[in-house]
Amino acid sequence: MPFTIAPPSLELEAQLRARIDGKTKPLGALGRLEPLALQLGLIQQTLTPQIRAPHVLVFAGDHGAAKAGVSAYPQEVTWQMVDNFLSGGAAINVFCRHAGVELSVVDAGVAHDFGARAGLISAKVAPGTANYLEQPAMSSAAVNAALARGRQLAHDLAEQGCNTLGFGEMGIGNSASASLLTHCLTDAPLDLVTGRGTGLDDAGLARKHALLEQALARGGRPTLPLEALQQYGGYEIAMMTGAMLGAAERRMALVIDGFIVTAALLVAVRLAANVLPWCIFAHRSAETGHAHQLAWLEAAPLLELELRLGEGTGAALAMPLLTAAASFLTEMASFDSAGVSGT
Amino acid sequence: MPFTIAPPSLELEAQLRARIDGKTKPLGALGRLEPLALQLGLIQQTLTPQIRAPHVLVFAGDHGAAKAGVSAYPQEVTWQMVDNFLSGGAAINVFCRHAGVELSVVDAGVAHDFGARAGLISAKVAPGTANYLEQPAMSSAAVNAALARGRQLAHDLAEQGCNTLGFGEMGIGNSASASLLTHCLTDAPLDLVTGRGTGLDDAGLARKHALLEQALARGGRPTLPLEALQQYGGYEIAMMTGAMLGAAERRMALVIDGFIVTAALLVAVRLAANVLPWCIFAHRSAETGHAHQLAWLEAAPLLELELRLGEGTGAALAMPLLTAAASFLTEMASFDSAGVSGT
Repeated sequence: MPFTIAPPSLELEAQLRARIDGKTKPLGALGRLEPLALQLGLIQQTLTPQIRAPHVLVFAGDHGAAKAGVSAYPQEVTWQMVDNFLSGGAAINVFCRHAGVELSVVDAGVAHDFGARAGLISAKVAPGTANYLEQPAMSSAAVNAALARGRQLAHDLAEQGCNTLGFGEMGIGNSASASLLTHCLTDAPLDLVTGRGTGLDDAGLARKHALLEQALARGGRPTLPLEALQQYGGYEIAMMTGAMLGAAERRMALVIDGFIVTAALLVAVRLAANVLPWCIFAHRSAETGHAHQLAWLEAAPLLELELRLGEGTGAALAMPLLTAAASFLTEMASFDSAGVSGT
Repeated sequence: MPFTIAPPSLELEAQLRARIDGKTKPLGALGRLEPLALQLGLIQQTLTPQIRAPHVLVFAGDHGAAKAGVSAYPQEVTWQMVDNFLSGGAAINVFCRHAGVELSVVDAGVAHDFGARAGLISAKVAPGTANYLEQPAMSSAAVNAALARGRQLAHDLAEQGCNTLGFGEMGIGNSASASLLTHCLTDAPLDLVTGRGTGLDDAGLARKHALLEQALARGGRPTLPLEALQQYGGYEIAMMTGAMLGAAERRMALVIDGFIVTAALLVAVRLAANVLPWCIFAHRSAETGHAHQLAWLEAAPLLELELRLGEGTGAALAMPLLTAAASFLTEMASFDSAGVSGT
């Protein structure tokens, strides 16, 4: 499944810069919001960008390795938290509600039968991955199915008028999976990108690290993106990768959350490097390894609030800043139009 | 005019912490939003805080020293920008509109006759300060009038149901005034807190610094807050100080913007140290000297976006984070209520 992604055209760049500089403010005074406004103008190919029908997709999946003890929480918390999302009680619900962002939850591979539920997109490839301590987490066919479904989800949202898509995830054990993927796809030693996840203590962290070394002893360090996904990934991660690529194909702005979402992006970048200029980095997570991912991608996130929750919470919290950037460019007066004297 | 301000009662602290920890998220996973939620709970004395009728007050005033060349812009830009605020075309209008924040502009001392205008609060003490290169900027009576009017404005908003008040300012030359106040009221050498304001070049910055040294040679380095205000302050700064103290008297959350607003807060803190626990620091400005003020106040701002615009733009941009913090505490499910397993 080849993804053909072009970077945004730079044709409007000079006009966008002139328009930003002509607004009633000192040159450069809106700081980081100015390059963000420029990026949104290029992404949307307009001098008057707007955040339309913003959406956060939360991809959920279970990990076979969770039962081996790579997380502080038991595996059933994945489906319990999905249930919490569907009831509106989680942090991502609260943040999306107040930011005017639509939220959908995607069952990419949870080990639970939800039946039909409002707000849940059923895209389950399988009820959880295999345990990568014993065998590859997914088959090649399953990886491709997850990518294809994710791509379709992004295309569907584009059809519905969404031009800004945030990514979130839920999956007990998925920070371990993200550590392995980051280790495989960047130059990072494992310990640099292995963290406490949802809150392991020192003994738990040592155990997690030992388990991941054991996994690598079995499966090696594949440096090709699809092989790394197959060995150590999760359905929610693979489906996010597909959705990111699908969103870039449809020229949407991608709002990237924390460590696990950025691991999915590492895979996406290796499949199609041109996905990157469509990405806006929402925040720097407190999870060990996110700083390395961001540095590797040369990405500067908007927020730094020591979040380490996942769910797309950082993406939801950053949405008002995207709106602010788009709307100053679209709505502010210019020195000329307002009759304000320049320097 | 004594201000009697008590710090928030800490009676609910343990209950608030327990409530925050019981939410469906790993302990501490909402990072900086957790102490912010705690602070809002203490300020509002409730386990279910809410940001009600949030408001940004933009205080405008002119500075006699502006004509001497302490700013990159001519003095008439003050009233022209006030006009722009009243027409809805400035950055602060755009950001408040999208954040659901009410905006009022206060003429504290602009050298212009606006007449009656919708959205403008006329509280003019005088049409601009005297030139502090030649004489004190304000009389003692004028300082007291500005403080009293600011206090009353905050009380009026409290009566109208506002519990969260952001501060902004407009005044050509007021970063120079803020530099002098910061130099007088903290331990900072003048050059550490003298910056480019709206965009001085190197020669302009050198000229500004020389002028401020000249002002200090005339008026000295008064270390008492009202004396410093009188020598080097502005009507907008003095009125902000009064409004901050008045807002703390009425137990509102104060949202502190950048360098000039923080200079007003330095005066307020010296008049009543208990104003500080009512303050939330919105952002770290790119203006030289703001970092020093924040360090002096031991304050950690929420955003770091390299803004240097003033107007209260940082305060407006931070408002959604206050809403996020209050609403996760008020609206999120607990592990118990959602039936999610703990660690």
